Amino acid sequence: MTGERGGPASKDRRRFLASAAAGAAVTVGAAAAPAVAAGVDFPKARGKFGAGGSESGGVSRAEMTLHDCEVEGQLPLDLDGTFYRVGPDAQYPKPKAYEDDIFFDGEGHVSMFRFRNGHVDFTSRYVRNDRWKAQHAARRSLFGYYRNRASDDPSVQNVRRGSHNTHIWVHANRLYALKEDSPPALIHPHTLETLDANYTFGGALTSQTFTAHPKNDPETGEMFAFGYEAKGLGSTDINVFSVGRDGQLKWSAWINAPYCCMLHDFAVTRRHIAFLAIPMAYSPASPVHWAWDSTKQPWLGVMRRGGDGKDIRWVPGPMNMSDHTMGSWSDGDRFYWDMDGADGNRFPFFPHLHDSFDPVKGQARVRRFSMDLSKKRITNFDMQVLYPDVTGALSRQDDRYNVDPYRYGFLVSNTQGKGPGWTMFDHQTRTHRTYHPGPDITLSEAVFAPRRKGAPEADGYLMGMAYFQKENRSEVLVLDTRDITAGPIARVQLPFKATPQIHGNWIPADQLPAV
Amino acid sequence: MTGERGGPASKDRRRFLASAAAGAAVTVGAAAAPAVAAGVDFPKARGKFGAGGSESGGVSRAEMTLHDCEVEGQLPLDLDGTFYRVGPDAQYPKPKAYEDDIFFDGEGHVSMFRFRNGHVDFTSRYVRNDRWKAQHAARRSLFGYYRNRASDDPSVQNVRRGSHNTHIWVHANRLYALKEDSPPALIHPHTLETLDANYTFGGALTSQTFTAHPKNDPETGEMFAFGYEAKGLGSTDINVFSVGRDGQLKWSAWINAPYCCMLHDFAVTRRHIAFLAIPMAYSPASPVHWAWDSTKQPWLGVMRRGGDGKDIRWVPGPMNMSDHTMGSWSDGDRFYWDMDGADGNRFPFFPHLHDSFDPVKGQARVRRFSMDLSKKRITNFDMQVLYPDVTGALSRQDDRYNVDPYRYGFLVSNTQGKGPGWTMFDHQTRTHRTYHPGPDITLSEAVFAPRRKGAPEADGYLMGMAYFQKENRSEVLVLDTRDITAGPIARVQLPFKATPQIHGNWIPADQLPAV
Repeated sequence: MTGERGGPASKDRRRFLASAAAGAAVTVGAAAAPAVAAGVDFPKARGKFGAGGSESGGVSRAEMTLHDCEVEGQLPLDLDGTFYRVGPDAQYPKPKAYEDDIFFDGEGHVSMFRFRNGHVDFTSRYVRNDRWKAQHAARRSLFGYYRNRASDDPSVQNVRRGSHNTHIWVHANRLYALKEDSPPALIHPHTLETLDANYTFGGALTSQTFTAHPKNDPETGEMFAFGYEAKGLGSTDINVFSVGRDGQLKWSAWINAPYCCMLHDFAVTRRHIAFLAIPMAYSPASPVHWAWDSTKQPWLGVMRRGGDGKDIRWVPGPMNMSDHTMGSWSDGDRFYWDMDGADGNRFPFFPHLHDSFDPVKGQARVRRFSMDLSKKRITNFDMQVLYPDVTGALSRQDDRYNVDPYRYGFLVSNTQGKGPGWTMFDHQTRTHRTYHPGPDITLSEAVFAPRRKGAPEADGYLMGMAYFQKENRSEVLVLDTRDITAGPIARVQLPFKATPQIHGNWIPADQLPAV
Repeated sequence: MTGERGGPASKDRRRFLASAAAGAAVTVGAAAAPAVAAGVDFPKARGKFGAGGSESGGVSRAEMTLHDCEVEGQLPLDLDGTFYRVGPDAQYPKPKAYEDDIFFDGEGHVSMFRFRNGHVDFTSRYVRNDRWKAQHAARRSLFGYYRNRASDDPSVQNVRRGSHNTHIWVHANRLYALKEDSPPALIHPHTLETLDANYTFGGALTSQTFTAHPKNDPETGEMFAFGYEAKGLGSTDINVFSVGRDGQLKWSAWINAPYCCMLHDFAVTRRHIAFLAIPMAYSPASPVHWAWDSTKQPWLGVMRRGGDGKDIRWVPGPMNMSDHTMGSWSDGDRFYWDMDGADGNRFPFFPHLHDSFDPVKGQARVRRFSMDLSKKRITNFDMQVLYPDVTGALSRQDDRYNVDPYRYGFLVSNTQGKGPGWTMFDHQTRTHRTYHPGPDITLSEAVFAPRRKGAPEADGYLMGMAYFQKENRSEVLVLDTRDITAGPIARVQLPFKATPQIHGNWIPADQLPAV
């Protein structure tokens, strides 16, 4: 009966798991590859790694410099800063045995739009990490499945796998390209040159990993971050720490997750730090590290910020898969955390251990998690859907409110009949407004740029990439948050499709070093 | 009555000439431009400079590096060399007063596809000439109409106008980007960095200009070139010269054209050098330097190669506009020269002084010009249409036969009902074969790559850019000259539209310096 529900997607996953078993044998075969690799040709079939390649826009791979992009409309002349983006952009097709590998495993391609005086300069560069360099020299893919060392070519068994493809973050004048399975890559904020592909804060970072979602505290100047699987793949160890405004590691604590699972984001408030364990769990049976394990339960863990972590309280709660923080805060002993989340697995490309992917359960809405820590005994965390009528992903907020009570949030939403949009939520009035770009246009994550230093919360601009499918071309749309439904005040145009994106960030010029 | 024939295009030209008169006044206004230039926004209307910008593919402007392009099909593993291209890629929109300026005035954007071991690396860079640098710093266009110094911004009256946007040529291990109104720019053949934006052969070049169409003599190792308007815009002076295999200027002679006109290409044989003066003449009334002057007559001038030029014989002949050499040779005192040419003006964007553009007269076919120099008195040059059924442009040949009798030629052709194609001519059998890529695909100039060093004439590959309009994406198509109608043996894919192109060249690896 599960076969019927799963349909073709389910068959794909079975093939997927079957090919994982063959992985070890294929690795040996790969060593016998000819000295001159075959020409680059990505597979055509949908769902394959880099599917369609150039022809279908599955990859970009082109590092670009475009001085003075064309701008339709009028950019505010005092909008001074950089819109950074990063995403997985497959450097090479995978060997046949691993071509079922997932999109998340593409090599990190960073891009930036530097806004200044109504002009915008565009640059994109791959992160020159150890993985990129090894493959560049070999002119072929050397790393197999996502987070699966056993599938790597023998020649790179001692080469770092970090792809740095998920998020871009600035703290203490440093720009980091981030992927949650590796230490950050330090990137030159103006040239995008890779300065250090394995940045460990002068050796002070003891976690083997570093989240893609740090939070900055504007008052203390600290950056809070963590690493999960911090003592190796499959480990339950979490290292949570802060970096001071001097860029030095400041505070560090070790905790343990209830089980090893994807901890993509976290919450930091003035008093608390929290993690949500979800059933996207480490599974040796999965070729791509994770599998959806419906026998597991979500757990919310909340600890005192700045403590030694021994106070952490892990509390179970209703089934969900929530991943991106919209905002979080503490009100005395009460902890609140808003995320976009679904009732079940949201990523059909990860295998299920016990059931099949359910697209209805996979639809995400904004959810508020909370816990009253004044209580001695807490049997369950609270979870409430805030806007039942809005589905979407990639929650964001005005990042100046990362650790404080906040009012406004942003989401890439999807409205039946109207297609994709950017939605702005006002939690105080519990209302929302959506900008719809129109048919055949898809949207990436929206990021917020304050109107000026010290502007009120969410007063400024919302911007992000829009892809015009018919023209095979991308633009950065800039909207005024006073009324995003009015449409873009300016459109920054590219003559081509932008590089793939997971996350992006707006960094005001005063947070970047001088050129 | 001419108004009726000319139609809307004719009105455009009248506006064009009218705006030229306003040029001087506008220049003064340009000096008062604000310190912060307006954002870049190309005009929408067709026919304007950079028309449509990114949105319509009118410009690219993106400098790119794409390691290991995707390749469909199978590239010959021993195909080792670089396919270079160059074209005008508008750096900035023109000021309003000059937005009627022509496509030819865009800044030179060079690109290269480095073929080796079945892999292809792509790079594109603007020529960093004085003009590019001045505009880059100012973030706006500073140069007005095509070859019209009076329309330039006061700030650049002493800055070189050279755009280096027409052709790319290699001789004596040096790569040149060429535009016929300026000295060459010396370009790094592997990085495309501009090494010298005003290369004068160590000061030995006395001509102010240098043709975009040099010829190489494979036996002597010489490069033959010339400059017209060599003593300044409007002058009839032609300097013709050769550069030895040591890269030093070797031979030089001065001659005079019957009138100052566009001398885009020339002919070099083992015995002769020839020029064709055509009625695309210098006119102070034209804002864009040239105008079609139907009161003038074409003249063919042939001189002894290596002489002092005093022997040149200018002979008049039937009206035509022929511009690109397919091949030329001398058979004793008989001189032969094949070009693509039309009965009248081929470029509707240049104004007519006395009549209107006639699209039928503007269609070009392969023409053979000849002159018997043994005759004491020659009243007219001979001109014969070789293949009346084929119209097209951008003649090429196997460049190893630049100065020798040749058998095969190539043309970008256009067949009623079948659209664009690449045609290969066999002059011995007077036959031709055409490859048609199919609907919605446009073709750039085709270049020839020998199968290997010492391969027979035209035995190898024909390659060039194809643009897929619906996908807004370009590919290099590689055909085997044994049968070009069989279609590409390999397709080198870009995820975007290639930069604009006038000419390109295939340079075997052994003609390039080591990296």
